[in-house]
Amino acid sequence: MSERIRNEALREKRMSAEEAAALIRPGMTVAMSGFTGAGYPKAVPKALAARIQQANDSGDEFRIRVLTGASTAPELDGELARARGIELRLPYQSDPTLRARINEGELEYIDMHLSHVAQHTWFGYFGNIDIAVVEVTDIDEEGRLVPSSSIGNNKTWLEQAGQVILEVNRWQPAELKGMHDVYYGTALPPNRKPIPLLHPDDRIGEPYLRCDPAKVIAVVEVDAPDRNSPFAAPDAESKQIAGHLLEFLAHEVRRGRLAKNLLPLQSGVGNIANAVLDGLGGSGYRDLTAYTEVIQDAMLNLIGTGVLRMASATSFALSPSGLSEFLSRVEYYRERIVLRPQEISNHPELIRRLGCIAMNGMIEADIYGNVNSTHVAGSRIMNGIGGSGDFARNAYLSVFMAPSTAKDGAISTIVPMASHVDHTEHDVMVVVTEQGLADLRGLSPKQRARSIIASCSHPAYRPALQDYFDRACRESYGKHTPHLLGEALSWHQRFIESGTMRPPIAT
Amino acid sequence: MSERIRNEALREKRMSAEEAAALIRPGMTVAMSGFTGAGYPKAVPKALAARIQQANDSGDEFRIRVLTGASTAPELDGELARARGIELRLPYQSDPTLRARINEGELEYIDMHLSHVAQHTWFGYFGNIDIAVVEVTDIDEEGRLVPSSSIGNNKTWLEQAGQVILEVNRWQPAELKGMHDVYYGTALPPNRKPIPLLHPDDRIGEPYLRCDPAKVIAVVEVDAPDRNSPFAAPDAESKQIAGHLLEFLAHEVRRGRLAKNLLPLQSGVGNIANAVLDGLGGSGYRDLTAYTEVIQDAMLNLIGTGVLRMASATSFALSPSGLSEFLSRVEYYRERIVLRPQEISNHPELIRRLGCIAMNGMIEADIYGNVNSTHVAGSRIMNGIGGSGDFARNAYLSVFMAPSTAKDGAISTIVPMASHVDHTEHDVMVVVTEQGLADLRGLSPKQRARSIIASCSHPAYRPALQDYFDRACRESYGKHTPHLLGEALSWHQRFIESGTMRPPIAT
Repeated sequence: MSERIRNEALREKRMSAEEAAALIRPGMTVAMSGFTGAGYPKAVPKALAARIQQANDSGDEFRIRVLTGASTAPELDGELARARGIELRLPYQSDPTLRARINEGELEYIDMHLSHVAQHTWFGYFGNIDIAVVEVTDIDEEGRLVPSSSIGNNKTWLEQAGQVILEVNRWQPAELKGMHDVYYGTALPPNRKPIPLLHPDDRIGEPYLRCDPAKVIAVVEVDAPDRNSPFAAPDAESKQIAGHLLEFLAHEVRRGRLAKNLLPLQSGVGNIANAVLDGLGGSGYRDLTAYTEVIQDAMLNLIGTGVLRMASATSFALSPSGLSEFLSRVEYYRERIVLRPQEISNHPELIRRLGCIAMNGMIEADIYGNVNSTHVAGSRIMNGIGGSGDFARNAYLSVFMAPSTAKDGAISTIVPMASHVDHTEHDVMVVVTEQGLADLRGLSPKQRARSIIASCSHPAYRPALQDYFDRACRESYGKHTPHLLGEALSWHQRFIESGTMRPPIAT
Repeated sequence: MSERIRNEALREKRMSAEEAAALIRPGMTVAMSGFTGAGYPKAVPKALAARIQQANDSGDEFRIRVLTGASTAPELDGELARARGIELRLPYQSDPTLRARINEGELEYIDMHLSHVAQHTWFGYFGNIDIAVVEVTDIDEEGRLVPSSSIGNNKTWLEQAGQVILEVNRWQPAELKGMHDVYYGTALPPNRKPIPLLHPDDRIGEPYLRCDPAKVIAVVEVDAPDRNSPFAAPDAESKQIAGHLLEFLAHEVRRGRLAKNLLPLQSGVGNIANAVLDGLGGSGYRDLTAYTEVIQDAMLNLIGTGVLRMASATSFALSPSGLSEFLSRVEYYRERIVLRPQEISNHPELIRRLGCIAMNGMIEADIYGNVNSTHVAGSRIMNGIGGSGDFARNAYLSVFMAPSTAKDGAISTIVPMASHVDHTEHDVMVVVTEQGLADLRGLSPKQRARSIIASCSHPAYRPALQDYFDRACRESYGKHTPHLLGEALSWHQRFIESGTMRPPIAT
């Protein structure tokens, strides 16, 4: 039963999830493991949510501050949000219940660059971390922790938290052992040194997480799956977007600006990312590498077929069938996958050095190339910026992709002015929709506008965008980035008021 | 006469500025030296402007693409803009004539992170560089170039340009020799290595710029001063802003979050920056360092008094009296100042490693902490983002400062929504006006809004900001970042229409 807890001292700290959850008190700052629905604690948050619900129902306010790696799953964010138990949450989230609570204004949410989370914790910007709740795969005789399917901020949580609760999840394959590379060379300024990683496959750390056993107040045994969503095959629109991007990459190779094995790929998650990765698989590439955040099925497939020589990430988020594939050839995959702390997977120093090709989704782009990754109509948070800023700013190529419309055409992805800016005009090189691709490198704002309107906008919105741009070029206060401020956000306002960005038909 | 040109082959390439300018043809991409009015070529651009003026007057369109380090001076940007000789200009500029031409929509201007310029040139994003025009202080027997009062992108220009025109400026003090540190270890991905700089004073390169003599098509002797503007003493408002920031830094030291000698300082230029540096000088600090872009008088003073142990920069832009002070103790200062290429002074890897305290000006901040550094009313460019993005994103502390109003109170620096975003909510930690300081670290958007409105806004605008925020909290589509899109930019629109952001008085 406890074959995964081989350290005697820690074995004595075993208790139930309910007992462990009882150690968490109102107002505490609790740092949890978890990144993209992988490696999050599963039993303690759920037990805690039940306790919180009870307390809140009986009028004793019980809320905690929750820090994670990135998104988790219903058992964590969903349950805690439903119990109204979260006072503050950071960074990235994607749970529908939590998102709704944030957008009702019921809790504080801090959306931040994923590479900033660990260092801002070390800098003391979030105060003390009272308790870390971290899922691990295994505890060895000496008390070293084999990380789970994600590392995220766990190194920092274990070091910075006053007390530690460990969830040892037997569901996680024992075969994960040896895939992790935890770098222990970080420091606070002025004592920082170069991070000695030169290639995506370099190992610069240890396969274990260290944890002072004296800080461990509970060890909970769990046997529960990760979010583990089934893999959705790319739809037609995603394939079109991927097609444009693949054509562009091939063009860059022909021009000699990219080698045949490209540069390390960073890929967001979701349908479009899957289509791009699938497309790369069918384009004759070999010996590619990835330096990214999440390894999902599409990337595992590329490793399996040898298109991708190896992948570095911080999270390993597979579908049930992806997991079977992994386990069926575990030795093969383990040699080709490295999981790192997210401060390393997303480190500006390393992304810049490696020269990544950053490919991320977006909510909207304006005609001048400012990208909104986070807010619907400027005010309603979707998920968060995640690592897209870490990668876009420092990449060799920064690409943002989305279908040109959303909500059955009621929303145009290309707008006169972005209603929120996460990636500025200075950080966006390529914009892609199913309509086409705009290569913004070396273009001024007005040149970018012509390219984005012509190549990326949906025909249903293109004339209105062109009309806005033409009038702005004539009437704008300044003509560097022409705007008509009285109507720059009117498309979003119309969407809020009428449910569509489409202009009313003149009568 | 030619004692500054000691290489025989290059001495034979001497010619007049007019002869050299005649080698530049319409449509060429010309990369020029210059950073913050220091080290820019002075004779060739002027002669070129005269030639261009003549051509354009007689109907032969003559325009070139101009790349620099950052801002130059009237002899370069001003003259070329006046002659309508610039087709494209990048990056940062601050010349009134050039700015007016850009805002009339007459030329393409690309505003970009200063750390991106060199690498995007190497990546080929601006096409071929036809000619580099670079000011140097001296050419030695072997043809090595002693850089001038700025380095900027000169290493890249000399390497990437097909042909080179050198201006040897006798006005530049021979004593500059030995102050420069030109790093030749950069590479293109996938061959990049860690940059071996661990402290602001580390020397990792050479005191010379290399240049293939075969590429040199002209050497022009010059004896002309840098822009060399007199130093303006800080005004009362700037001193108030500085006071708030100094109090904050002292608080951080008391809290143990900063050591007594702080962390390497990055300081923008201008009145507020001078006030901050002056204030540091009078606050008992010792053994400080600077890792910044420009060394101006206020920083030289701090070195002179021993408050600053040393400063690293890419430009040395002094007033006439600052220059006298430098020359009067040249050995002392030369040991304490290092000038580097701007790709090194602004490198994200190094800024993050050193943990800089980044202090920059702004045009406006919105209540949620998005900062506009570049555009008036969203469309009219002021100067450009410069290095503020390189520093803010990667700093230990990112501070943005400005008076709370401009144009005699007609403009509020704190607005409901920024009309252009250069630094996103994810990158701004501290906002300061003469009214006070908002520490945004660890705050959610609504918490930031309360802090900025209360601490930074001018009393004449504070009630209107509070009213906007309160209504937005009630009526916004989403309540994560509450906004009323119908009026979010109405303050700017009112300024354009009526010359003031102040709401009309109700009658």
